[in-house]
Amino acid sequence: MNEKKQNKKIVIGRTDLAKDEYDKYQASSLNQLIDFKNEEFNLNNITVIKNIIGNQSASILQKQPGNYYTIDLSNCDIHDTKTIDDIERTFASTLKDMLENLHLTGKKAFVVGLGNSNVTPDAIGPYVIDNTIVTRHLYLIDALSEGFSCVSAMSPGVMGSTGIETYDVIEAIIKKIDVDFVIVVDALATNAIKRINRTIQLTDSGIKPGSGVGNSRKEISMSTLGIPVIAIGIPTVVDATTITVDAIQMTLKYLSLEMDKKTSFANKLSPTLVYEDLSKAKDLPDSHKETLFGAFGKLTESEQKTLIEEVLTPQGYNLMVTPKEIDVEVEDLSKIIANGINLAMHVGLYNGK
Amino acid sequence: MNEKKQNKKIVIGRTDLAKDEYDKYQASSLNQLIDFKNEEFNLNNITVIKNIIGNQSASILQKQPGNYYTIDLSNCDIHDTKTIDDIERTFASTLKDMLENLHLTGKKAFVVGLGNSNVTPDAIGPYVIDNTIVTRHLYLIDALSEGFSCVSAMSPGVMGSTGIETYDVIEAIIKKIDVDFVIVVDALATNAIKRINRTIQLTDSGIKPGSGVGNSRKEISMSTLGIPVIAIGIPTVVDATTITVDAIQMTLKYLSLEMDKKTSFANKLSPTLVYEDLSKAKDLPDSHKETLFGAFGKLTESEQKTLIEEVLTPQGYNLMVTPKEIDVEVEDLSKIIANGINLAMHVGLYNGK
Amino acid sequence: MNEKKQNKKIVIGRTDLAKDEYDKYQASSLNQLIDFKNEEFNLNNITVIKNIIGNQSASILQKQPGNYYTIDLSNCDIHDTKTIDDIERTFASTLKDMLENLHLTGKKAFVVGLGNSNVTPDAIGPYVIDNTIVTRHLYLIDALSEGFSCVSAMSPGVMGSTGIETYDVIEAIIKKIDVDFVIVVDALATNAIKRINRTIQLTDSGIKPGSGVGNSRKEISMSTLGIPVIAIGIPTVVDATTITVDAIQMTLKYLSLEMDKKTSFANKLSPTLVYEDLSKAKDLPDSHKETLFGAFGKLTESEQKTLIEEVLTPQGYNLMVTPKEIDVEVEDLSKIIANGINLAMHVGLYNGK
Amino acid sequence: MNEKKQNKKIVIGRTDLAKDEYDKYQASSLNQLIDFKNEEFNLNNITVIKNIIGNQSASILQKQPGNYYTIDLSNCDIHDTKTIDDIERTFASTLKDMLENLHLTGKKAFVVGLGNSNVTPDAIGPYVIDNTIVTRHLYLIDALSEGFSCVSAMSPGVMGSTGIETYDVIEAIIKKIDVDFVIVVDALATNAIKRINRTIQLTDSGIKPGSGVGNSRKEISMSTLGIPVIAIGIPTVVDATTITVDAIQMTLKYLSLEMDKKTSFANKLSPTLVYEDLSKAKDLPDSHKETLFGAFGKLTESEQKTLIEEVLTPQGYNLMVTPKEIDVEVEDLSKIIANGINLAMHVGLYNGK
Repeated sequence: MNEKKQNKKIVIGRTDLAKDEYDKYQASSLNQLIDFKNEEFNLNNITVIKNIIGNQSASILQKQPGNYYTIDLSNCDIHDTKTIDDIERTFASTLKDMLENLHLTGKKAFVVGLGNSNVTPDAIGPYVIDNTIVTRHLYLIDALSEGFSCVSAMSPGVMGSTGIETYDVIEAIIKKIDVDFVIVVDALATNAIKRINRTIQLTDSGIKPGSGVGNSRKEISMSTLGIPVIAIGIPTVVDATTITVDAIQMTLKYLSLEMDKKTSFANKLSPTLVYEDLSKAKDLPDSHKETLFGAFGKLTESEQKTLIEEVLTPQGYNLMVTPKEIDVEVEDLSKIIANGINLAMHVGLYNGK
Repeated sequence: MNEKKQNKKIVIGRTDLAKDEYDKYQASSLNQLIDFKNEEFNLNNITVIKNIIGNQSASILQKQPGNYYTIDLSNCDIHDTKTIDDIERTFASTLKDMLENLHLTGKKAFVVGLGNSNVTPDAIGPYVIDNTIVTRHLYLIDALSEGFSCVSAMSPGVMGSTGIETYDVIEAIIKKIDVDFVIVVDALATNAIKRINRTIQLTDSGIKPGSGVGNSRKEISMSTLGIPVIAIGIPTVVDATTITVDAIQMTLKYLSLEMDKKTSFANKLSPTLVYEDLSKAKDLPDSHKETLFGAFGKLTESEQKTLIEEVLTPQGYNLMVTPKEIDVEVEDLSKIIANGINLAMHVGLYNGK
Repeated sequence: MNEKKQNKKIVIGRTDLAKDEYDKYQASSLNQLIDFKNEEFNLNNITVIKNIIGNQSASILQKQPGNYYTIDLSNCDIHDTKTIDDIERTFASTLKDMLENLHLTGKKAFVVGLGNSNVTPDAIGPYVIDNTIVTRHLYLIDALSEGFSCVSAMSPGVMGSTGIETYDVIEAIIKKIDVDFVIVVDALATNAIKRINRTIQLTDSGIKPGSGVGNSRKEISMSTLGIPVIAIGIPTVVDATTITVDAIQMTLKYLSLEMDKKTSFANKLSPTLVYEDLSKAKDLPDSHKETLFGAFGKLTESEQKTLIEEVLTPQGYNLMVTPKEIDVEVEDLSKIIANGINLAMHVGLYNGK
Repeated sequence: MNEKKQNKKIVIGRTDLAKDEYDKYQASSLNQLIDFKNEEFNLNNITVIKNIIGNQSASILQKQPGNYYTIDLSNCDIHDTKTIDDIERTFASTLKDMLENLHLTGKKAFVVGLGNSNVTPDAIGPYVIDNTIVTRHLYLIDALSEGFSCVSAMSPGVMGSTGIETYDVIEAIIKKIDVDFVIVVDALATNAIKRINRTIQLTDSGIKPGSGVGNSRKEISMSTLGIPVIAIGIPTVVDATTITVDAIQMTLKYLSLEMDKKTSFANKLSPTLVYEDLSKAKDLPDSHKETLFGAFGKLTESEQKTLIEEVLTPQGYNLMVTPKEIDVEVEDLSKIIANGINLAMHVGLYNGK
């Protein structure tokens, strides 16, 4: 089998998460990016990863340059009252930091919930708006209490339901009403199973609605709107290709760990396996990959995706899927995001907390 | 790598569909089952597969013996008015045939919608009950019109919400009220991507609620309840393991087709692939499987599932997933099933059709 | 009791329906309005009342001058398939007439659903948008089929949820995108029990969102927006004051009919009353009113409302109420309106009808 | 006008609330009931009225004898977090007292949510079940934690949707599973505007589902089921007749107060009225009633209802209505009831409170 490595850009399938890009990038063992910064810290028992993507890294990773915060909920019970409180405060704190860095504290916000309220995995944006505390109508009549900022909010709907580009709605509104910055909230696609409904990403680099589902709309960002944009995204869907390659990669790592333990492959079918945190497993050497997964195993992860996607898509099998429990998860995540925005915008609410 | 073929029963992961079993079985190239019958026909442009599973086949396939009808919607637009009408009539016709064979025509039916109305992919049962035409209260006061049968209906809820075994609710009710047979409707798990929301299975062999999700409850069947049970199931969920192995198998078939065309593997990464119906592709020889997918490729499909499941489950990655469009699909499928039941039970409705 | 009739404008409580005004006006036995026209006709078995309100009448009736169409569904079963079809075609036909008179046939429409999708009696606007066929995104890329017009649509939300005046959203959007006219759909308040969920009003005179609930917002009309506005309204709520005075008036009419039959008042409490269409009953003379309802009976209907409202409101008893069956009625009415708009805008759909 | 007072039982229209009966009874100035007890107390800032209705009173009031608790929320903001907490604890405390008096503490409960989840004002029962903590499935496998009782729960649906009498479902289930008592939760009708969504009634005297809406089903009580039944009811609907007569009575009281102040009737139309708590106003003498409301005013409240109902019903105007805000009110009230039941049944939950 003759296989030529092409010196092309990294194509990593459908994802809107910077964290995905970086993770895969690491896995691809490319040279170190020079203007990429990675910092990880813990806030209220929740892990937050901060990435700064400079111009060069942005070009290689095919992401917009900017600051990205990833709040990792993969070990959180998002239905537990105490944990929800921790997440809300962590999210609010991160958002407040971003506002401060962008000199937006106390400024007039316009919160926009992207997505379709009738499609549950796409409904986080609209649901967040339902729970956002808006104050602009009070601000206009000088009835705003101490500790509250001027906030307006809207769910513009999706183009398939409105016939209007979401960007156009936002641009029209911010021309009409006086706002200082925009917060957009959207459901995203991811390329890692573990992130589904378990990651909150915040970025000042803008967003392209629908980019995760191959249906890209006009970018909503500082450079297009002319005022700062903070994008908040939660991955709720993943495609069959991603699940497949993710599972294969995990199986490879698993077998690598087992080989190190000198157990035989046949035992892998036994039911007495010990739990291992595979995310910390090292990559296998290429020879092992070929032994275990043949020619396919030797492809890069990106190439594996391209191949699987090309097989599944024309058969109608490359479904975008979401966890069975999506109803309650979207409801709970929306409340977390809305409450976090409320806490970040209205410090007066902290008295009640 | 030393690998011993075990003479064990076929374990095919999480599925409630007889069709799944049969399909995989074929693929496994086992000897012909002696009391298994397979018939395929077309009704109102819809494909219906009828399987009769005898005792021996039942034992090997690990299914209850009985008659299974599979209405295949994989090529249907289930949101198109004309197609919906075709499906409803095909389903009603199939159900009427079953009732006739079981000498239940015109008898008193109790329709039970299993599942949880708050979890969309599990809500088909309750949603069907919402749209079922019940008449028992009219029958009791002799107010039933010509052409209508006595139908009662109920959504007993799930054990996690009621604390009561679903079987116990049904048994209690049929002891209290006078019914001749039970129709249970439930959402199922499948082990084939293409069947999700695109298959309706009818069987007289009963059902084990939750068996697809590894949370098996007491069987609801003629042998447990003492009266005939017709189970109607629609697969709405699939696990990550199934998606992965399904995708790998499809990729193998695809590469097999391409090899026949003497194209090189490298070209597989090109974007100009011709659409092929992979379901008709023949299996690859074992040597090709090893070349393409290594040691993993040589495992049987069942063994691949066992391995992948063992890797994903402890990591929390073996998600049960459902298509992104689940809201509208469950709504439309529920109406189809309910209207089909209504047409089968109440021939008086045909005048309006 | 000393009571001075004031020569003031007619205040008829909370209503958004022109028909309400006219009905009460007749009842008040005032002099004939000179530029008020009333025409009643039947379309597909549905009664349609057309009122033209000129400037003088408008001033007296406290309504905007313009054309008003009232589709009367008070004798319709709005859940019956055949009747729904009749109503949709009647509504579509009326809307098409209005478009033709305003020279808007085939022009670019922007359909706006006012109200709050989370408050069922206020959700008709948003629900209509969910079912409106939008085409603007296809129009923009020249992909619009024959027989389809350019339609965009939006639910801007309510000011309490967005902090933005609805008028401002609409004005912003029509400045940004190229539309020729606006169709606004809103739930209304009425002052006649029989109209609740049983009237569709169309007018070219614009609308004040929330005017029925004493929470008036900036008017949406040709004179404010600069392009034609067709307002479609359905009354879904009524206040306790209206119910009370409506019931008292009906009781007066009823007793009047009975008095004519020379039956005694005591018999009114007997259970064997004959059905009478009270809407056709003539008014009682003042002396009878006083005998039956005392000083209260002698007040004009408008004065009775003012009094009852003044009593109920400070006690928190002047509830805005809606029928118990509001969920299914709003769902069905929304589909009727949406389908009617679709039929009026896209004549290509008639082929499928 | 000749009017004969009949010595008949008191017919007070559509209501399920004992409190309604008692209030009207007082107003009717009948002789003192000998075995009726009335006690009012304050718990967590919430007013609770306890009525004991003995056999004689029961016969006159046309209610079942038993203990009735009325939790009065008419001055509560049921959407305020702190108030909700107060109500939940008051309700839980009342329920615990009832359980203790009936020697049911720690016994096995079966919670039944009556009503139709698709009709919002009738959905309190099913919504309560959605939020009830069930434990029977854990109890059966000896996995129940300290401080938790055995609770099962169910929404049997309404007869129009199931064809089965609700009583029959409950009887069948309690024969099949081992329970010690039943808690039924239902939405009620009331005959006082101020009670709508603002009263919780608890009683050990059982319930007749649908009795408030003139569609009475078989009684669910100790005497029919053979085990204790605690019925929890919340009035969510009222008919137009009740609103009308309630408003007229209130207007009479208001005018009475004003007459005492020697102000003239004409002033009643002025907009500068002072707020008065009309519920504390004394009745007018008959002569005043006639002056103000004529022959109608002299009728008893019960007779007024009979008359108005006879007028409105055949016209289709005697609507059952519910407040405009029913969606959020039913959601919040359901959570209050469910949490109250949870706290009363599972003392282990208090640790988290």
